[in-house]
Amino acid sequence: MTRQPVLTPQSEDFPRWYQDVLSKAELAENGPVRGTMVIRPYGYSIWERMQAELDTRIKAAGAENAYFPLFIPESYLRKEAEHVEGFAPELAVVTRGGGKELEEPVVIRPTSETIINTYFSKWVQSYRDLPLLVNQWANVVRWELRPRVFLRTTEFLWQEGHTCHATAGEAHDYATRILHDVYLDFMVNVMALPVLVGAKTPSERFAGAINTFALEAMMRDGKALQMGTSHELGQNFAKVFDTLFLDSEGRQEHVWQTSWGVSTRLVGGLIMAHGDDRGLCIPPRLAPVQIVVILVRGGGGSEEAVAEVAGSLRAAGVRHRVDSDVETSFGRRATGWELKGVPLRIEVGPRDVEAGLATIVRRDDGTKTQVRMGEAGSLAVQLLEQIQSEMLDQARLRRDERVADVDTLDQVRESTENGFARIPWSQVGESGEAELAEDGISIRLLHRPDGSLPRAGADTELVAIAARAY
Amino acid sequence: MTRQPVLTPQSEDFPRWYQDVLSKAELAENGPVRGTMVIRPYGYSIWERMQAELDTRIKAAGAENAYFPLFIPESYLRKEAEHVEGFAPELAVVTRGGGKELEEPVVIRPTSETIINTYFSKWVQSYRDLPLLVNQWANVVRWELRPRVFLRTTEFLWQEGHTCHATAGEAHDYATRILHDVYLDFMVNVMALPVLVGAKTPSERFAGAINTFALEAMMRDGKALQMGTSHELGQNFAKVFDTLFLDSEGRQEHVWQTSWGVSTRLVGGLIMAHGDDRGLCIPPRLAPVQIVVILVRGGGGSEEAVAEVAGSLRAAGVRHRVDSDVETSFGRRATGWELKGVPLRIEVGPRDVEAGLATIVRRDDGTKTQVRMGEAGSLAVQLLEQIQSEMLDQARLRRDERVADVDTLDQVRESTENGFARIPWSQVGESGEAELAEDGISIRLLHRPDGSLPRAGADTELVAIAARAY
Repeated sequence: MTRQPVLTPQSEDFPRWYQDVLSKAELAENGPVRGTMVIRPYGYSIWERMQAELDTRIKAAGAENAYFPLFIPESYLRKEAEHVEGFAPELAVVTRGGGKELEEPVVIRPTSETIINTYFSKWVQSYRDLPLLVNQWANVVRWELRPRVFLRTTEFLWQEGHTCHATAGEAHDYATRILHDVYLDFMVNVMALPVLVGAKTPSERFAGAINTFALEAMMRDGKALQMGTSHELGQNFAKVFDTLFLDSEGRQEHVWQTSWGVSTRLVGGLIMAHGDDRGLCIPPRLAPVQIVVILVRGGGGSEEAVAEVAGSLRAAGVRHRVDSDVETSFGRRATGWELKGVPLRIEVGPRDVEAGLATIVRRDDGTKTQVRMGEAGSLAVQLLEQIQSEMLDQARLRRDERVADVDTLDQVRESTENGFARIPWSQVGESGEAELAEDGISIRLLHRPDGSLPRAGADTELVAIAARAY
Repeated sequence: MTRQPVLTPQSEDFPRWYQDVLSKAELAENGPVRGTMVIRPYGYSIWERMQAELDTRIKAAGAENAYFPLFIPESYLRKEAEHVEGFAPELAVVTRGGGKELEEPVVIRPTSETIINTYFSKWVQSYRDLPLLVNQWANVVRWELRPRVFLRTTEFLWQEGHTCHATAGEAHDYATRILHDVYLDFMVNVMALPVLVGAKTPSERFAGAINTFALEAMMRDGKALQMGTSHELGQNFAKVFDTLFLDSEGRQEHVWQTSWGVSTRLVGGLIMAHGDDRGLCIPPRLAPVQIVVILVRGGGGSEEAVAEVAGSLRAAGVRHRVDSDVETSFGRRATGWELKGVPLRIEVGPRDVEAGLATIVRRDDGTKTQVRMGEAGSLAVQLLEQIQSEMLDQARLRRDERVADVDTLDQVRESTENGFARIPWSQVGESGEAELAEDGISIRLLHRPDGSLPRAGADTELVAIAARAY
């Protein structure tokens, strides 16, 4: 069976491969206003799975969902100096509403620290109101000059968490708890991505934060993608917005805050970190469809066999779909489901029925296994777990092959041609960082030699991870 | 035990009672930009339960979720004449982006027919692509001059479904399927609201629709609230956006479309339809917290008993929360949970432990039942079902008492002082509708005498439901 190559090979042109996957797998396309995107049903079903997995973890970390307005008075953003400086160039501004010019222009939220603190300052009175842990799922807008679907869009969907604590230590602990228990756990154990964690350098911090932690993943072209951030905001916003509390000894203090978020960019990361020349490849725990049952051209009791297989999958709790579209050739359908990255497919046709066995094919490595129709469910469960763990192993191998330990900026330049460079931060420093930036290379994060987070003020031997990034 | 009245009584000032509930039950408050709202965690948890119940039904009706941009080029809205006329006065317009004046101003979606059709026209080619059934959960903006939290806000959250069909009949069937299987089923069986269904009069139709079906609920002050709508769009948008398909005989035809939506307004409807002078009253199937376990001032093994009760509730699959805040008086906490409308509370204190029995109290009617700690779960399940069905019965009784059958416009004016009027549509007509509108009374919907939907062109004896409305 010859199949037409539907995608530009990754090795030929990675960005074009990415565009091809977006379009051919019906994930997303550009919106009419520059930088916006339309997320098509299949793409959105992946985001829904991400939301469900993240939301469970966010709630387990004690945060509750709420919703704050899209519109922020322009004056609110000006209150925190660094914050407005960071976001001013990216703002979308509403100047007309209800047929009239507005007295004060309204900004579309690029993030919600300012509007949320306006309410936190009313809701927080005493230490008994702390910690205050709030999250929202929302759209935000940051005008984007070089947009790329999912990775960098003018409007994107995300969750943004915002919290208040009584002490700097509690805020630090919560920011790192979100980093580890929500983001890292989700990315490693659901997305099968061996992301690196660390702190951003001062120049890469969120506008208004005293410390930004980040998670960075390696794409299949060796570039880095920032997958999420968790910030310690200190008392910066609290001081500007008078978010005060009475401590247990009756003293009035400013709260210590965190904010943290991940976005639809994660879908882009998924595509570029696991995809191959046949398309998307989704780890089973994340996949909206874990296995597709393909009815091969009918007759011979195939329909009944498909029903038996589907029943077995349902009983095993596997997310499945039946493809009975026999008017389209089998090869084309198989290619289509591979393109969409469904982890397993099971083929059922007259010959399979005769043999009493169907064939299960793995998307990740193409291996095939024969199975009795009624046992499809239990085998699928077992294969899905195996794929999940092997996809993580494979991604880790790919990453480790492409992380080079180096000592000089020139070596950084060389290694980041197709991977990450690990170099003592003392060899780089802020001047080295600025030099590398001129060549399009950034310090993605700083961490301790064992990969753990820096401890404030206590680390002298930090390691920098440098890369070209999306 | 004396409890301070925390809310303005409904009979004294219903709108103020509503504001009191919003604030004291920590549901929502006004945003800084006029007409926007902040949905607080408890209010949002109700919306999340609504979303979950609706989303399941929408998916069961075959629609898939997607996401279209917030920003619509101003020119798109102008393409459908009635549509732009209907929405122009309510638009919010972005004129600056990324620090520059935009060449073409961008409108924030008031609804998404125009941008979605732009994509449908690309995605639909042949009859094999139909029906195309898409839904999105999103925020929309309609500049509001007389805002009221949840009921009428400049920004609100909603779902909007958009579909394409091959024939007028299929579009009609789908619009009514959504009305009945998604909206009516949810409102009656989850929200415990005996809503009326029917068609809007021509003057009340959605801008661009050929037919609008609606669901109307009666609030406790006798006024109506439109809870949701499902529109037949005919081929209006398809013709403007060239949404064409090749039918099975190779002819090119315009698709027939529907659109349908419900919004955060439902939370307002819930409050005003079930609430009483003690606060919110949430039907059990909807309630984020179905039962609260209140630890009465400690000692005597109460903590262990609370743990046993909570274990029994967990095993029974009941959504519960434990309130161990013994520093706050029991009375105040009980009042607080009543205010939040939690359907059941169970009180556990030293005396209960001694007696081996705890007391379960119903929010809706205050009745109390004794139960062994370990049997709390099974009794709660039984009581919750009973409350669910009795709340619907009570709401139906209240509604029926306040629907008057009348024959003249003067009688309509009288009956709508505190309820709905039912009058033959032939006695009203479009001129009568205009006359009533001058007195702030509207025809909420038209249906057949048995309450079912009008059949296009076939009904001569339609009944009109008239009311004052939010």
